[in-house]
Amino acid sequence: MAKENSLDILSSSDQTQKVEGKKLHFNLIRNYPQKNAEILSSQYGFNIFLAGLLLMFAWAVHAVGITDRDLLSYLITLMLIQLVWMLWYIFGSYTQRRTIIEKDTDAGARWLRCGITLFAVITLILDSFKIGYYIGYSECLSITEGIFPVTHTIHTLLQVYFLWFHAKDIIQSFKTLERFGLIHAVFTNLLLWANGILTESKHQLNEHKERLITLGFSNITMDHHTPECNCTSNVCSIFSQGIYYLYPFTIEYHILASTMLYVLWKNIGRHVKHQQQQKIHFKFHGITAGTILGLIVLTTTIAVLVVYLIQIERSKSKSELALCFIMFYLFAITVLTLMCTAGIIGLIIYRLENKSLDETESPAKKLDSDLLVGSACGSWLISWGSILAIICAETRPEYSWYNLPYSILVIVEKYIQNLFIIECIHRKEEELIDGRTLEKIFSVSSRSTLSLTPSYEVFNESVTICNKEFPYLSNSELSLGEASAEDKKSQENNNSIRLSPSAIAIQVARSEKLNKKRRVLKNIAAFLFLCNISLWIPPAFGCRPQYDNGLEEVVFGFEPWITVVNLAMPFSIFYRMHSASSLFEVYCKT
Amino acid sequence: MAKENSLDILSSSDQTQKVEGKKLHFNLIRNYPQKNAEILSSQYGFNIFLAGLLLMFAWAVHAVGITDRDLLSYLITLMLIQLVWMLWYIFGSYTQRRTIIEKDTDAGARWLRCGITLFAVITLILDSFKIGYYIGYSECLSITEGIFPVTHTIHTLLQVYFLWFHAKDIIQSFKTLERFGLIHAVFTNLLLWANGILTESKHQLNEHKERLITLGFSNITMDHHTPECNCTSNVCSIFSQGIYYLYPFTIEYHILASTMLYVLWKNIGRHVKHQQQQKIHFKFHGITAGTILGLIVLTTTIAVLVVYLIQIERSKSKSELALCFIMFYLFAITVLTLMCTAGIIGLIIYRLENKSLDETESPAKKLDSDLLVGSACGSWLISWGSILAIICAETRPEYSWYNLPYSILVIVEKYIQNLFIIECIHRKEEELIDGRTLEKIFSVSSRSTLSLTPSYEVFNESVTICNKEFPYLSNSELSLGEASAEDKKSQENNNSIRLSPSAIAIQVARSEKLNKKRRVLKNIAAFLFLCNISLWIPPAFGCRPQYDNGLEEVVFGFEPWITVVNLAMPFSIFYRMHSASSLFEVYCKT
Repeated sequence: MAKENSLDILSSSDQTQKVEGKKLHFNLIRNYPQKNAEILSSQYGFNIFLAGLLLMFAWAVHAVGITDRDLLSYLITLMLIQLVWMLWYIFGSYTQRRTIIEKDTDAGARWLRCGITLFAVITLILDSFKIGYYIGYSECLSITEGIFPVTHTIHTLLQVYFLWFHAKDIIQSFKTLERFGLIHAVFTNLLLWANGILTESKHQLNEHKERLITLGFSNITMDHHTPECNCTSNVCSIFSQGIYYLYPFTIEYHILASTMLYVLWKNIGRHVKHQQQQKIHFKFHGITAGTILGLIVLTTTIAVLVVYLIQIERSKSKSELALCFIMFYLFAITVLTLMCTAGIIGLIIYRLENKSLDETESPAKKLDSDLLVGSACGSWLISWGSILAIICAETRPEYSWYNLPYSILVIVEKYIQNLFIIECIHRKEEELIDGRTLEKIFSVSSRSTLSLTPSYEVFNESVTICNKEFPYLSNSELSLGEASAEDKKSQENNNSIRLSPSAIAIQVARSEKLNKKRRVLKNIAAFLFLCNISLWIPPAFGCRPQYDNGLEEVVFGFEPWITVVNLAMPFSIFYRMHSASSLFEVYCKT
Repeated sequence: MAKENSLDILSSSDQTQKVEGKKLHFNLIRNYPQKNAEILSSQYGFNIFLAGLLLMFAWAVHAVGITDRDLLSYLITLMLIQLVWMLWYIFGSYTQRRTIIEKDTDAGARWLRCGITLFAVITLILDSFKIGYYIGYSECLSITEGIFPVTHTIHTLLQVYFLWFHAKDIIQSFKTLERFGLIHAVFTNLLLWANGILTESKHQLNEHKERLITLGFSNITMDHHTPECNCTSNVCSIFSQGIYYLYPFTIEYHILASTMLYVLWKNIGRHVKHQQQQKIHFKFHGITAGTILGLIVLTTTIAVLVVYLIQIERSKSKSELALCFIMFYLFAITVLTLMCTAGIIGLIIYRLENKSLDETESPAKKLDSDLLVGSACGSWLISWGSILAIICAETRPEYSWYNLPYSILVIVEKYIQNLFIIECIHRKEEELIDGRTLEKIFSVSSRSTLSLTPSYEVFNESVTICNKEFPYLSNSELSLGEASAEDKKSQENNNSIRLSPSAIAIQVARSEKLNKKRRVLKNIAAFLFLCNISLWIPPAFGCRPQYDNGLEEVVFGFEPWITVVNLAMPFSIFYRMHSASSLFEVYCKT
């Protein structure tokens, strides 16, 4: 019997080995561990990104043998690969009926998709300008400068479609290939973003140099790339001028797209607990004060910007420039002080409500807060540079004493605003208590005082709402006065209490107080939202006193300081746009 | 009754308000939300770090009015604050008997603490050299250059003590103050690391410039800071020479300290599931092949380094230099190819074992993998620069054809090695099956064949072990041959099976096969560990062909390329040390 058994076992172990072999093959191909697939693809992404960055760097420093054409060819190749991947993904979603049941409710909010579509439309206009410019100068421009905007147009159209319909997907099948495609898309967009920044910075730097030459500095070399032939149409100059006013929007488009794609990548293979769909409603009422104040800031900003740009272009002496700087700094100091105050009030209100934070992991939320702090670092770097320059400078022009509080306020304001936004993003959702619910409570309570019999069920409802609103008010505290032994029992069993009309009145008053708090918060969010939009405009459209005021340049030297500003400014600009979008979310959630 | 009730309620609501007021105060002071305390402190950390970086930058670019003294004073202040905080923490731990029950078993492993102590000892020697140097030149050096090494000595001693005894703490009390102190410590160490790198880079750059001047390039300005008086003792030149050989260790010390402090910071307020203590044992047996091969690489590296440094210093023509480069590249290509092969074999072995990954969150593990990929980016950047330069250069020296495969292999090797390390770090721990367990299984099985009565309990044990080792062998497969209806029933109930001696023999053979696999993995880890140590040595001690070979400098220009190398090289060097420490962990875990 032992022999038979062992034979059986042997043949079974043969079978086992076969099964095992199949399994191993399966493991090699399909069940590649989640964590490793992540590292495998992210390392690929870093490498294409670094190679692209070095190409840009080489082009920017005029490396021998590296031209505009090489850089554009690289970007075109990356975009084409992404196009093929997106087509494969979209096609696969429809034909194979791949069922993506799970969706991440935090990712790809509708207002975010609307925002990206708006920016994409402006990007398309920019592309058409570029195509027009290429047609005008087609005789002397390389063919890649024509292919690039065409490819970019198709890329933009398909990508917006992709993000609109698939931004919430939590992909579970074919993980590795999806990961590679998504990370490729993330870094392609980041490279296009960096390319936009580079072109924009070069343009800004040239304008700055032109100004310096006007002011009498002669030992500065310009870095122009004007085509060597004449334009065949009449609108070339309009195109080349217009392009630079549209660049800030394209830059925002690409960074937004890459963040959305990153969240998609992070979500691959994730298992979310079934959350309730948080529908964010945008209602415009009760925020008059915040909106009006914000709109005043917005219009003033535009006025200041126009005056600044005109003054900077016309001024031929330093004293004329000084007035211009003082105007800008005084305006910015006022706005930043108001924003700090608003932020502090918001934080105090949060502290007064002891609400617990949502600790569940969400890539979208985590990315939001990381981006806020990370991009703020860019502007902090510039501000610390200014502060250091003011302290160490040997001779200081008059306006530098306005620069110091301005730089300090830039740091403080971002510090406070980040705290305000991140705390709101991480607060737990709750149902709103509105007027109708209050009326319901009120009518129920008046009925109960008339009949004097407790109607537990209806009260239960109102108490639940009250508890949600006032977590610090426990049931025992509410019923302190009227607790008889019998009542206590029924209370323990049914978790319900009796409320007298005056108690209800107190509840209503409290609820109103809470609604007042909420209204204040909404006003703060609306005000900060408009302020951030306002503060995005000046640096994005060429009002950069860090370039123009000359103090930092003298202390650090022209080249080093320009390098710092050019590296840090894009993050500073991105910060404003990103915090504006986060504040919109804060407004809707409050 | 209604009136009475309402009065009662009113007085109770007064009481409630009082309680509420107290609670609110409590909330404002103590219960500051976890998430916000994190952001609050990290933003503070970023700001002191950015301010420090800008001071260093200003000093490096010779900004007007910013001297060595300002930078050192800033660093001394930060160190003193950290000292006060550490004393407060350590003192608090003993006197208040603050009970820190929870410990993070992943953090602050013993070998890590031993490593940091070793580096700290060398740092103390460096500090004593600096003090000696200051005493020699005390007439013309500023007092801060004397205070700095003294403060640094005290700082190092206390910090090593702190890390030795508190690196595993999971702090639950006084969260906000602890967070601020720890993040301050993290960024102080990062600034000291950056300061070390800056000094080291300046020294390397000066040596490189001296070489260029020897080779006949005359338009290069040196950047020396030699004191303007004579040394009062005879050993000053020994001190100033010795300092630069010790710098690489100090740099590693500070980055290691800051990662350990960061993990401590991340762990504040965390709630860990009670893990079993994973004791890592270091046993040196069965890894002869890997060790011998690794030691050969190590000795060859040192030989190559010595030849390289002597040749570079002596060579006065380019053809002499060429031979030196070819030697270095051929050596590096051989080593990197071996490492790639080892890494690929390791990954294939992982794929053959279908082991699940540990998905539990651990700041220490996450930081480890982030640091690996992040610091690899530094070396990838340099490699992509070399590749680009080779492709685009107009004239290429002979040795550039060795540079191309070298640069590609650097990228590929890090890619594979990261996959290998990160997969191992995230694999689930399991008990080892050793010789004695096997003997036990064997003796049990022979007993059972003699008596022919199944002894379920003992078998249960051995099956559990087998299942742990062979997760792809399910019970049903094992019992395929001998399953009678009754057996099946008892199997379902008791989850136990009968094994014939031949089956046991197969198990033993399998187990041996698995032990063989494990031995191969251990050899790979040991080999890669020694190779990484080897590859750490050349760049840390001045063998940097990216500086010397001249090709990239011609393509990118001297300044831009030197900037890239100086920024990326520290990360590349750190990568080697960090991967060596990770591979040590891999070795111990396998």
